Amino acid sequence: MDFASDNTAGASQRILDAILAANAGPAAAYGADSFSAKATELLSEVFEKEIACFLVATGTASNALALGAICPPFGAVFCHQESHIMEDECGAPEMFTAGAKLVGIPGHAGKIGGEDLAATIAAFPRGAVKQVQPAALSLSQATESGTLYSCEEISDLAAIAHGAGLEVHMDGARFANALVALPCKPADMSWRAGVDVLSFGATKNGALACEAVIFFDPAKASSLPYQRKRSGHTLSKGRFLGAQMVAYLEDGHWLGLAKTANAHAVRLAQGLAEAPGVRIVWPRQANEIFAILPRRTDTALKAAGALYYEWSSRRFDAGIAAPAQDEVFVRLVTSFATLSSDVERFVAIAQGRA
Amino acid sequence: MDFASDNTAGASQRILDAILAANAGPAAAYGADSFSAKATELLSEVFEKEIACFLVATGTASNALALGAICPPFGAVFCHQESHIMEDECGAPEMFTAGAKLVGIPGHAGKIGGEDLAATIAAFPRGAVKQVQPAALSLSQATESGTLYSCEEISDLAAIAHGAGLEVHMDGARFANALVALPCKPADMSWRAGVDVLSFGATKNGALACEAVIFFDPAKASSLPYQRKRSGHTLSKGRFLGAQMVAYLEDGHWLGLAKTANAHAVRLAQGLAEAPGVRIVWPRQANEIFAILPRRTDTALKAAGALYYEWSSRRFDAGIAAPAQDEVFVRLVTSFATLSSDVERFVAIAQGRA
Amino acid sequence: MDFASDNTAGASQRILDAILAANAGPAAAYGADSFSAKATELLSEVFEKEIACFLVATGTASNALALGAICPPFGAVFCHQESHIMEDECGAPEMFTAGAKLVGIPGHAGKIGGEDLAATIAAFPRGAVKQVQPAALSLSQATESGTLYSCEEISDLAAIAHGAGLEVHMDGARFANALVALPCKPADMSWRAGVDVLSFGATKNGALACEAVIFFDPAKASSLPYQRKRSGHTLSKGRFLGAQMVAYLEDGHWLGLAKTANAHAVRLAQGLAEAPGVRIVWPRQANEIFAILPRRTDTALKAAGALYYEWSSRRFDAGIAAPAQDEVFVRLVTSFATLSSDVERFVAIAQGRA
Amino acid sequence: MDFASDNTAGASQRILDAILAANAGPAAAYGADSFSAKATELLSEVFEKEIACFLVATGTASNALALGAICPPFGAVFCHQESHIMEDECGAPEMFTAGAKLVGIPGHAGKIGGEDLAATIAAFPRGAVKQVQPAALSLSQATESGTLYSCEEISDLAAIAHGAGLEVHMDGARFANALVALPCKPADMSWRAGVDVLSFGATKNGALACEAVIFFDPAKASSLPYQRKRSGHTLSKGRFLGAQMVAYLEDGHWLGLAKTANAHAVRLAQGLAEAPGVRIVWPRQANEIFAILPRRTDTALKAAGALYYEWSSRRFDAGIAAPAQDEVFVRLVTSFATLSSDVERFVAIAQGRA
Repeated sequence: MDFASDNTAGASQRILDAILAANAGPAAAYGADSFSAKATELLSEVFEKEIACFLVATGTASNALALGAICPPFGAVFCHQESHIMEDECGAPEMFTAGAKLVGIPGHAGKIGGEDLAATIAAFPRGAVKQVQPAALSLSQATESGTLYSCEEISDLAAIAHGAGLEVHMDGARFANALVALPCKPADMSWRAGVDVLSFGATKNGALACEAVIFFDPAKASSLPYQRKRSGHTLSKGRFLGAQMVAYLEDGHWLGLAKTANAHAVRLAQGLAEAPGVRIVWPRQANEIFAILPRRTDTALKAAGALYYEWSSRRFDAGIAAPAQDEVFVRLVTSFATLSSDVERFVAIAQGRA
Repeated sequence: MDFASDNTAGASQRILDAILAANAGPAAAYGADSFSAKATELLSEVFEKEIACFLVATGTASNALALGAICPPFGAVFCHQESHIMEDECGAPEMFTAGAKLVGIPGHAGKIGGEDLAATIAAFPRGAVKQVQPAALSLSQATESGTLYSCEEISDLAAIAHGAGLEVHMDGARFANALVALPCKPADMSWRAGVDVLSFGATKNGALACEAVIFFDPAKASSLPYQRKRSGHTLSKGRFLGAQMVAYLEDGHWLGLAKTANAHAVRLAQGLAEAPGVRIVWPRQANEIFAILPRRTDTALKAAGALYYEWSSRRFDAGIAAPAQDEVFVRLVTSFATLSSDVERFVAIAQGRA
Repeated sequence: MDFASDNTAGASQRILDAILAANAGPAAAYGADSFSAKATELLSEVFEKEIACFLVATGTASNALALGAICPPFGAVFCHQESHIMEDECGAPEMFTAGAKLVGIPGHAGKIGGEDLAATIAAFPRGAVKQVQPAALSLSQATESGTLYSCEEISDLAAIAHGAGLEVHMDGARFANALVALPCKPADMSWRAGVDVLSFGATKNGALACEAVIFFDPAKASSLPYQRKRSGHTLSKGRFLGAQMVAYLEDGHWLGLAKTANAHAVRLAQGLAEAPGVRIVWPRQANEIFAILPRRTDTALKAAGALYYEWSSRRFDAGIAAPAQDEVFVRLVTSFATLSSDVERFVAIAQGRA
Repeated sequence: MDFASDNTAGASQRILDAILAANAGPAAAYGADSFSAKATELLSEVFEKEIACFLVATGTASNALALGAICPPFGAVFCHQESHIMEDECGAPEMFTAGAKLVGIPGHAGKIGGEDLAATIAAFPRGAVKQVQPAALSLSQATESGTLYSCEEISDLAAIAHGAGLEVHMDGARFANALVALPCKPADMSWRAGVDVLSFGATKNGALACEAVIFFDPAKASSLPYQRKRSGHTLSKGRFLGAQMVAYLEDGHWLGLAKTANAHAVRLAQGLAEAPGVRIVWPRQANEIFAILPRRTDTALKAAGALYYEWSSRRFDAGIAAPAQDEVFVRLVTSFATLSSDVERFVAIAQGRA
């Protein structure tokens, strides 16, 4: 019963098979191989647009390289105050931008509102030399609270950002989980909605270690080959990144994996909602569930071997009643590798049936 | 006939099998898994010392993180002027040290001499505020010229460095190839000779993407967990790094792979030495051969599909006659995956027998 | 009627005279002159402690160098969310720390409260690799809201910081203005209260361009000579910094200047408090007054040529009623060079008497 | 007899007077004052071109800010291997470029030759991702060896640089000393010869602390206001920088100061050339003399109180016979403040006449 994260899962068999298949014979190093070329081709198809694409092994690298390309050292990146780039990357964006400032914006359920965004940007007037200069908006889809922006919401926020001269980045570590939950296509949820640079995740959704930094305007990617290299993120045996991404995309494998993960989350959320004393904190929209459990439920689940993180109470937003003394605030994540039996057993315990 | 690099090879079957085996079930993320712990344990055994170990996916990351830990922004790293950190990492050491200076030292066959080292360090007096301050010596073993330092030579250079208050780093991207060519143990070629931090490579010798930053004094590694994270080099599914390193080390697999690679190089060098008009530039000591070929030989080899790099004439050192107009300076690299038949065919062509 | 800032004033005559006097004959460059040595000696006397002292020309340099010495690239600096280092230095602390994160803490009247500090530090657990690590607390004295910490308050906050393993920095751009308003000695307001590194300002209080970075434990200053040099802050004709600081300190000149500035502020605040419709926002404690003026008063003052800044409404804190439509939120600053006649005229206009 | 440096001199009386005059009354802070505006105006006149100009207090700041504006973190700055930016700024260019690499080029008498420049640039092929990318050429005028480039030489080097896509920076810490020694105008020695960004020094030639970063294409200066601020180089009482520069330029004051300094050097070089056993190392062209003295002469001079630096033997170039055991290699610098009587006394001692 491991609901700690979608990165405690391994890789999908199909992706592992692709790695094995890619192993045969020599291949050009540093991304000049045919697998990497094929990955770019497939991503261009998926996004219905010619793109520039840079494969790396981690989401932090993907986000930080993307932000480094669109934010100068004296720039500001606007993001949700609980976002991954703000809270969970130990200052990677600061390192890759050579010292830019991340400006956190509060917002219910992990989402930034348009008015808050506009007001925050306005607090950093263009040309006011004492202050860092507005450079980028970074949105997470799905958010750190497991919620989703609709394509319209992304469009609206991107329009505000573009109107103020900012570039728009999307942290898509869970892009697939978001996509399959919304009635839109990859292009709709990204460049058609105004996203300029996308960190397109695969690792949390079944890859071994593979993420793509995608520039929808290839002309803006000119520094990336060098920045990827000097940050140590250009893998010598690049074929193995390419092979993962190809297998991930071919035949809609990525969509199937995400649908599986989300379906487990639907069932888990439903089961918890019916469990006595359990409160679902934010709406379950992708593959993460944030819930407040009675402490006795938490104790029973852990005694049964369930794994999940207690979530920081600091991460609460104003719209939610904080956990009481005898309650625990937790995050549960499902993945393609989650077992239905684990979900059912977890629910049964939470409902006091096991 | 691919002799372009040891990173155009894939991974060894044993290492791929280990990745597959590690895939089963959930595992703690970010390096807290049992495979990573086992890797540290095995490395401690191999080096006969308690170490601190950080697995990453690239050699550039390994070198840059190591240097960042031992050189301040106002420091100088002394290295051979043709070393990988100087010439081939697009400024990674500068990025990870926040702007330190690499000071290149010339030297025959890719090796630094003790007098040159001492004189160069002396040109940066301790406390002379206008100049960057001596902080680290970085040695490559094997060197970029495919040559080796004896353990005594390492000891002598390290003693000079330590005497001047420097830490000693070793770029061991081809540590295994060097080790099996010398009559010494891993500890002799590293910490017993004075190496403080080692970039221990596995990728070029059969791993998919795995390198270890090894601190022989774990107390000096306190910043590494954070620097690895903020540089995006902490893989979420860390088990796959751990599994590679474990398979690499167990049962002497790494030594076998290196011996195979080196044996191919021995045969290739021998065959070339007997080829008309071919000059071996630096002594073949590990798995790289630097040779000057008659242009007609080069043409014949390429026509037959052989792959290898022309080496920069700038990289010549004073002891070697530069290639003539009708000659080409090339680098040939063998690996565990090199085919004997390719070696023989290459030699036959070079010798004008095919 | 220039109340825009205390840096729109020139330098005191005594300090200019000292510059002239220092000009005679040659002097050793880069701070090795006798004036700089004398400055260190006088500062040691003033603070009753042997110190390490580094003179620079700007407050931003002073703050950023100080923070760079006590916060690693993966560290967090805790400060008031409206502090100068957070809002007004265009990312200098981020540059000089090579990418650390400033964590803003809200607090009434520009001051951080102990509970808020403790809670914020606790949100960055030691050893939690995903997050930047608590490294420093930075307090401003006087604050950006013109208020003061008592020595006890500084002590309490420093104790919390030290208890969590942090170093304590004080931004003392207006150290003198604070000091003469409190019943304590320089040592009491700094190291005896737990301050480790002090940015000791002179420019706003009558120097031409002179600030001192003061380490109360000289052993912690070992990197400063190099960091000052490589950031371009080691003046070649260092005698002119030394001469300013010496003249500033000798015969209590600095205290006299600050008393004059504060006395003007007392009178100005008193006059405004009695003006119809004017609200003093935060208590006037040093040489800055934050007030809400009726728009008609603002209009009348500006028509008469008064200079001052409208203050950002964003900088309001929860305890204060925001300005209404027909009101303006302004900052007024007095200095040693303020003319009493200007104060009186300003007050007269505000009170509708002129 | 202080010939240690031109920064051991004080400031010219005229410049000090200007500082005093600028002190009266309030002035807008951070460079928005009328003196700074006037300085830009005068510099535009001097250089016969509309420029963007940023005043700072040190030459290191000026150079580093200039290079940071034209070289990305993954870029290379080509410069003479003995240049000030390479040897004497403790890594400032690396800090302000966020980690770029300085590539030193050897060359007789402190000057870079065209062939060496072209060959060195060619060793960093555009698009070769492993290597830092050619970004800037930095020339020193006068050089660190006290020699001068003719305007034609500057033109030729700049043409090579521009042809390879580089920007051209000039370190003009001694721009005035060079200018008055050559038959050309400021524009000829800078932008007409291809210089894009100039560090225009005044400190060594009579200012208290004042240098200008000058962009001959103002459009390229867009990041400078922010980079100057975040590096702590925007002086709050900016009028004092402006006033220095205005006084420096008005009525040709700067040219007079430089002529005086150079004339002292002419006399000193002449006297030394006639002294027994003294060798002039590089031709005296501006206000610096590099000479090899018999040790007995050195001893006699020092006994008489003469101050000057022994120059690093490492700084020798191939064209010069190194000092013998009983010889000393020294640098002598004259300034506007040098006393003729000191020159004569120095010469007399060197010639054994005193």
